Amino acid sequence: MKVGIIGTGWIAEKAAITLNGLDNCEAYAVGSRQQETADAFAAKWNIPKAYGSYTELIADKDIDLVYIGTPHSHHYDVTRQAIMAGKPCLVEKAFMANATQAQDIIRLAHEKQVFLAEAIWTRYQPAVGIVRKLMADGRIGQPRMVTATLGYSMGNKPRIMRPDLCGGALLDLGVYALNFVRMFCDADIESIDGHCVKSDTGMDLTNAITIILKDGILANVQSSAQCVGDNIGVIAGTQGNIIIDNINNPQTITLNGPGRTFVETIHVPQQITGYEYQFLACRQALIDKLTEPREMPHTETLYVMQLMDELRRKWGVRYPMDN
Amino acid sequence: MKVGIIGTGWIAEKAAITLNGLDNCEAYAVGSRQQETADAFAAKWNIPKAYGSYTELIADKDIDLVYIGTPHSHHYDVTRQAIMAGKPCLVEKAFMANATQAQDIIRLAHEKQVFLAEAIWTRYQPAVGIVRKLMADGRIGQPRMVTATLGYSMGNKPRIMRPDLCGGALLDLGVYALNFVRMFCDADIESIDGHCVKSDTGMDLTNAITIILKDGILANVQSSAQCVGDNIGVIAGTQGNIIIDNINNPQTITLNGPGRTFVETIHVPQQITGYEYQFLACRQALIDKLTEPREMPHTETLYVMQLMDELRRKWGVRYPMDN
Repeated sequence: MKVGIIGTGWIAEKAAITLNGLDNCEAYAVGSRQQETADAFAAKWNIPKAYGSYTELIADKDIDLVYIGTPHSHHYDVTRQAIMAGKPCLVEKAFMANATQAQDIIRLAHEKQVFLAEAIWTRYQPAVGIVRKLMADGRIGQPRMVTATLGYSMGNKPRIMRPDLCGGALLDLGVYALNFVRMFCDADIESIDGHCVKSDTGMDLTNAITIILKDGILANVQSSAQCVGDNIGVIAGTQGNIIIDNINNPQTITLNGPGRTFVETIHVPQQITGYEYQFLACRQALIDKLTEPREMPHTETLYVMQLMDELRRKWGVRYPMDN
Repeated sequence: MKVGIIGTGWIAEKAAITLNGLDNCEAYAVGSRQQETADAFAAKWNIPKAYGSYTELIADKDIDLVYIGTPHSHHYDVTRQAIMAGKPCLVEKAFMANATQAQDIIRLAHEKQVFLAEAIWTRYQPAVGIVRKLMADGRIGQPRMVTATLGYSMGNKPRIMRPDLCGGALLDLGVYALNFVRMFCDADIESIDGHCVKSDTGMDLTNAITIILKDGILANVQSSAQCVGDNIGVIAGTQGNIIIDNINNPQTITLNGPGRTFVETIHVPQQITGYEYQFLACRQALIDKLTEPREMPHTETLYVMQLMDELRRKWGVRYPMDN
């Protein structure tokens, strides 16, 4: 599978490293708004093609999958363009600025019968299956409570502070916490509420979200762009708990029994970056002629965007794209 | 210091073990509603005096401190009686059923000039000073987020399920999570909100509480009487975090730096049960002729009760004592 990378930032580098480490996927092209940035990126990561515009990359007939690694404020236009050109897309999280954009893009992909996926990498990782199996096997009894933290200390990074870059912790980090809950809890949401501390620019710097599910599980999660979180996720049941060491890139899953007695630690398989699973899932979906990945269906991508819209509305965190 | 223990349950046993391990404190008497229960407890824990009523124990002139270890639904009457008799009291948490009871008892103690303390043991433990020092020394930069969990799987224990026993997770477990926040955050509370999953009997089985402080710290804590919690507390700052292994009885305090890099683990001093610090604090306060302990002033005991009243009101968790 030949992948065209759009964007040359930190996440695009991660994608290039990942693709360079895979046998059946290739970092085939990179696209930037500036030719020299594309050239430099291509030279650094040994990528055959470098385009000075997104349009040129999208037009490359040899590309099997366009990976969109621009900031989330800039996903909509380029994804739309790629889908219109019939190009399968893997779009970084948060998928879009809001649910309206997400719905529009998903509708278009269905209309054009073009593959479209959200690059929420945790959904594709082996940890998902490992944790689900522990739960299904009754190793923690009935789950009752889910907690998760994602916090990075980012100072005053523009992408966190600026409304036009869809700032705040929620879309950048909280999205992982919400997906953590959704991955491991099947029941519908009965209620969702949240609170946040905002920046002078009106973006959520630290937030807390409480979700009550129809089966009585309570999820209480938080994210912050202002501090060093423990980044641990916990699924607590009547007979034990499962502790995931890092909800952003799980490496160890620890099972404890009644009374917090240690049972076992499971390590995820050796990985390149952890991003490989999303590329491999896209590859398989394309082989199988699907229009969405099995691991993260469009309904779920859209639903999480809707939850984030609802929370932002409550908090008064608004982006220009919301108008 | 001669201590008279009221109650013969699990927590009373802990108190006896603790006092038996101390040089300058003594488990001098035990009081139960039944003489034979008192006798059995006294025999088991080598306690000189056994009373078949609380009144007799309170009347014992040799007792320096009455420790009230009955269920929290039953604290009010016996504490009132002891204070009226001029007996210094250490009352188990949750201090009272509600803030009205707490205010009444505190007012009475002030009026009678009798020592009164809440046995919220975590407030008296060395971990408090260790964590506060790490924070004061700027080891985690500016604190931004506090999280804490306390969860025990208790099945359908009457004291959790029954309104007349002041059921629910909040008064039994959530009180530790609230105190965790109050111990390490000095700023006033700007807002507090919470959600819960209730039992058929109307008691909160699992709850989530979000507190925003006036200095912009966000605290998001939870407690549950239905599952095995990780019971970890985290104070996350701009430059690192502090992880406390068990908010109910801290043994290790781990300091991490930027990027979650491990810095150091601090172990608390060897302890008997962890309950000794509250007895020693009472002893010192009595020597110093104080009417409340330095570690947990009455204003704070009352304030936490008021927070719990506010949360219960919001949740519709009502006890008969609320009328």
